[in-house]
Amino acid sequence: MEITFLGTGSGVPSKNRNVSSLALKMLQERDEVWLFDCGEATQHQIMNTTIKPRKITKIFITHMHGDHVLGLPGLLSSRSFQSGESTVELYGPTGLKEFVETTLKTTGTHLNYPLVYKPIKEGIIYQDQDIKVSAKKLKHGIPSYAYKIEEEDKIGPLLPDRLKELGVSPGPIYETIKNQSTTVLPNGTEVHRENVTGSDIPGKRIAICGDTKPVDSLAQWVNGVDVLIHEATFIEADDQLAKDYSHSTAADAARLAKQAQVSYLLLNHISSRYQQQILEEEKTRLQSIFSPLQFVDDFTEFTVK
Amino acid sequence: MEITFLGTGSGVPSKNRNVSSLALKMLQERDEVWLFDCGEATQHQIMNTTIKPRKITKIFITHMHGDHVLGLPGLLSSRSFQSGESTVELYGPTGLKEFVETTLKTTGTHLNYPLVYKPIKEGIIYQDQDIKVSAKKLKHGIPSYAYKIEEEDKIGPLLPDRLKELGVSPGPIYETIKNQSTTVLPNGTEVHRENVTGSDIPGKRIAICGDTKPVDSLAQWVNGVDVLIHEATFIEADDQLAKDYSHSTAADAARLAKQAQVSYLLLNHISSRYQQQILEEEKTRLQSIFSPLQFVDDFTEFTVK
Ligand SMILES: [Zn+2]
Ligand SMILES: [Zn+2]
Repeated sequence: MEITFLGTGSGVPSKNRNVSSLALKMLQERDEVWLFDCGEATQHQIMNTTIKPRKITKIFITHMHGDHVLGLPGLLSSRSFQSGESTVELYGPTGLKEFVETTLKTTGTHLNYPLVYKPIKEGIIYQDQDIKVSAKKLKHGIPSYAYKIEEEDKIGPLLPDRLKELGVSPGPIYETIKNQSTTVLPNGTEVHRENVTGSDIPGKRIAICGDTKPVDSLAQWVNGVDVLIHEATFIEADDQLAKDYSHSTAADAARLAKQAQVSYLLLNHISSRYQQQILEEEKTRLQSIFSPLQFVDDFTEFTVK
Repeated sequence: MEITFLGTGSGVPSKNRNVSSLALKMLQERDEVWLFDCGEATQHQIMNTTIKPRKITKIFITHMHGDHVLGLPGLLSSRSFQSGESTVELYGPTGLKEFVETTLKTTGTHLNYPLVYKPIKEGIIYQDQDIKVSAKKLKHGIPSYAYKIEEEDKIGPLLPDRLKELGVSPGPIYETIKNQSTTVLPNGTEVHRENVTGSDIPGKRIAICGDTKPVDSLAQWVNGVDVLIHEATFIEADDQLAKDYSHSTAADAARLAKQAQVSYLLLNHISSRYQQQILEEEKTRLQSIFSPLQFVDDFTEFTVK
């Protein structure tokens, strides 16, 4: 799984940072891209990446503020124009359907693919055999959510030495053995998968948080994720501004990362008031709270491993 | 009056051309900027110009297709964020108010200035002592309009020689004489302005057309304008595509410009399928129909004179 940050600013676009969006690319795993938030000009940002809009199958909206959703109608429309034909599922809070439907209706837009609305509440909002997505409410004036994406653990690799002991040579039989719990060989031997594979490969776990002030119960919910993506609208010196606007500071996010013992912290939704130099100094300070962490930029790529 | 083209593409944004918008800058005349259409990421384009969103006082929408309006909520919202406080008037067809109101409502957006909706129909839609705007219906599947902006003729310059003959020396009295039709001098002499000014300075006239197939009656309506801005989604070789999609070819626009005896033709709303080389060849061909003309690009500036 790879993450491409498409917009890492807050509130309004600036020359350096567009408004919020990020792509979770699962091309190897399932040939799909999932989008989280879709601020204005997300489709323009995508033009500068290798992402194909028709591969986008699910879009998750953290909250309905304009800097997180205004790019949705244009993206959906262009995806249709660029021959996207597969269903798109839209996950998000109340208001999302009314916003999208009214926009499509008043602009006379007809999509060449089905759009399915998935209103969310806390708990599991999507699950298939490979992946699970849950939502948790945050605190931001209007309903705002964090999403947690959890891959199922995968069966470990076949162990050729063990198989050899059972008289199995490499070949198509390997695939058969891996795909079922017990395989009966032509000679009658039963091969139990659990005996010929290494330990399970843990699935990746990612948490993507919408705009929020610090939420006590969040640490437990994101506990141990491989990557925590959290807003850092302000630096700690501007703590009062964060409080005034129901946002977090970078230090709030770092404390959460520490408490939740996550593996990596990525900070986005950064106010355009901060120059790169300020952010580098803040990063140095934050590392006494938690590490590794990174302020991300538009087009930052991150591989989850 | 100066025109800045903010988006000159058609349908979907491309790397070279954003979707539709142009700014009519009347900073010297009235310290205002008027926007015509506002496709997605118009506010991003504006960031690359000297235009200040708070100077935008009127926005005219030619038609409700997404590539002409989806940037409106974001622009209005950022204008508020950037301390725009003066009223914005929104002129456009049915659906504009529902689109904007629903978008602002569902995204929890509060503007710090009044928004006034001005639904349009054919005829004069705005008039003050300096300028008049009229609308005319075009043909594009959904209601689409052309806008004509006509400055009032201005009183010609004072003629110092004539004034001297009447015993008037340069001074504040000049301004008084220019501002009223008759001025009585301290010595009792009546000065009639019409006798001491040169001929009227004709006001500039600009026509900005929305998406349309050729419309017979348009030539008379735009007759003699200083600048005709017209869509040229296709080149003449793709005439059938233009017909299929209710658009015009560049040649359609050139024939209109010739018939209407306009002074200058600016072609916008250009399909991204055409490379610059193709457009240059088309321009050469078109010049046998009408000249001067120009395919405009994003950020092309044009001074109306
Ligand atoms: Zn935000
Ligand atoms: Zn158009």
